[in-house]
Amino acid sequence: MSDRRAAFRALHHAARPLLLPNAWDHASAAALAARGHPAVGTTSLGVAAAAGRPDGEAATAWETLALAGRLAQLPVLLTVDVEAGFSDDPAAVAGYVAELAGLGAVGINLEDGRADGTLAHIDATADKIAAVKAAVPDLFVNARTDTWWLGVADPLPQTLARARAYRAAGADGIFVPGLAEPATLRLLTERIDAPLNALYQPGGPGLNELGRAGVARVSTGSLLFRAALAAAVASADAVRAEEFTAPPTLPSYAEVQRLVTAARPLPSG
Amino acid sequence: MSDRRAAFRALHHAARPLLLPNAWDHASAAALAARGHPAVGTTSLGVAAAAGRPDGEAATAWETLALAGRLAQLPVLLTVDVEAGFSDDPAAVAGYVAELAGLGAVGINLEDGRADGTLAHIDATADKIAAVKAAVPDLFVNARTDTWWLGVADPLPQTLARARAYRAAGADGIFVPGLAEPATLRLLTERIDAPLNALYQPGGPGLNELGRAGVARVSTGSLLFRAALAAAVASADAVRAEEFTAPPTLPSYAEVQRLVTAARPLPSG
Repeated sequence: MSDRRAAFRALHHAARPLLLPNAWDHASAAALAARGHPAVGTTSLGVAAAAGRPDGEAATAWETLALAGRLAQLPVLLTVDVEAGFSDDPAAVAGYVAELAGLGAVGINLEDGRADGTLAHIDATADKIAAVKAAVPDLFVNARTDTWWLGVADPLPQTLARARAYRAAGADGIFVPGLAEPATLRLLTERIDAPLNALYQPGGPGLNELGRAGVARVSTGSLLFRAALAAAVASADAVRAEEFTAPPTLPSYAEVQRLVTAARPLPSG
Repeated sequence: MSDRRAAFRALHHAARPLLLPNAWDHASAAALAARGHPAVGTTSLGVAAAAGRPDGEAATAWETLALAGRLAQLPVLLTVDVEAGFSDDPAAVAGYVAELAGLGAVGINLEDGRADGTLAHIDATADKIAAVKAAVPDLFVNARTDTWWLGVADPLPQTLARARAYRAAGADGIFVPGLAEPATLRLLTERIDAPLNALYQPGGPGLNELGRAGVARVSTGSLLFRAALAAAVASADAVRAEEFTAPPTLPSYAEVQRLVTAARPLPSG
């Protein structure tokens, strides 16, 4: 296993849950890396909205690959949200993920939610996971089940069944977004023999409480992207209303430029 | 002249200066349009940093064109920052800008600052402006002179000379970023026979005061992009520190998705 992949795996076994902030472009990933986050993920909503495409409809395979190629150059571990793999064909999904791994990604998120609001058949997702793990055995595959996210009836048994099948197919972690209730998370962490990933919810339990429930990794999902968008619009509103006040952490023009130039490879000459 | 180009031109002659917020991707432009801004610009720093490229080095010609193609689909007037035209050849600049105009942009910003921190020769920029206006006569060409931005010695006479030359070449407006001092702006607006564009500076004069100095248009430049980046990083910091509080205007996942789906062309079938 490569050192980077092993380092990423180890982050799932620390005293405090791994906080995985999700970026959507070079600048957001570089700025998060510069703040000392050891790993960053991508947010499929952010990547899609930035590109003017819908999330969850397999419309951003190209953008996701291009972004991964750039972010893999940064001094941070990178895991990539590939929605449902951008294909129904396990071999195509595995080929795509192998490309990401070749670029330098250490992990992926692969989800069973579909654009129509239903879950894919359990075997369809398990087959994709198995194909990916066969192609890139030491890549960290975080299998996301959208039982709570999509609001299916009686989600607990369905979640456990899917976690079991995805683990059997080779998944390294299980991600259950939409669930923030500590007692239920605790129950899942007791029944699933892999690191559990929760989605941070504003107003919900914090990292420490999620950690006490056994959660190994906490993602911010689209939160940072949405906070960024809110800040941009609110800033324009404030300038228009003659009420703008600069946030204390506003980066300068030069600081933003350095996010790019500092990330440049050294000249080879 | 097309209705859209005429509408954009008219915005430079209103009672209050036109506030032109600058976007860097589909989501930021769509969100600003949804807040009622009649026009949006692009920020070359934001476009470049999002793509992991340096600003001001002609490295984002492709990204800028691709972005313009998406933003021109939005229900908002679009003006595009093309740095110095991404070429030293006036014919190449004109061809590039004609492509932007073909996509639907109603204006451009064209600057005389160079990556090495010096100003291009006055004739070099004037020749680009003349070539663009010959190719697309009714496109609003906002000629930006970086006299104050780059801190040249004795900027006032240099600015007036450049404004005169750029106007003679056909420029429709003059942009002088880096200058926020009302008395000097007033002097410029009295001596330049075209709408003057100022860059909003946090802590500097607001829209109304700039308007009283005769300024016709106020750009936010990279400010919204930098505010967005600051908010993303600060949000991740706050989650890590167990201190996150959602901003009151945080859009939901569904609201972000609607920025894309609402902007889709109607099905043709």
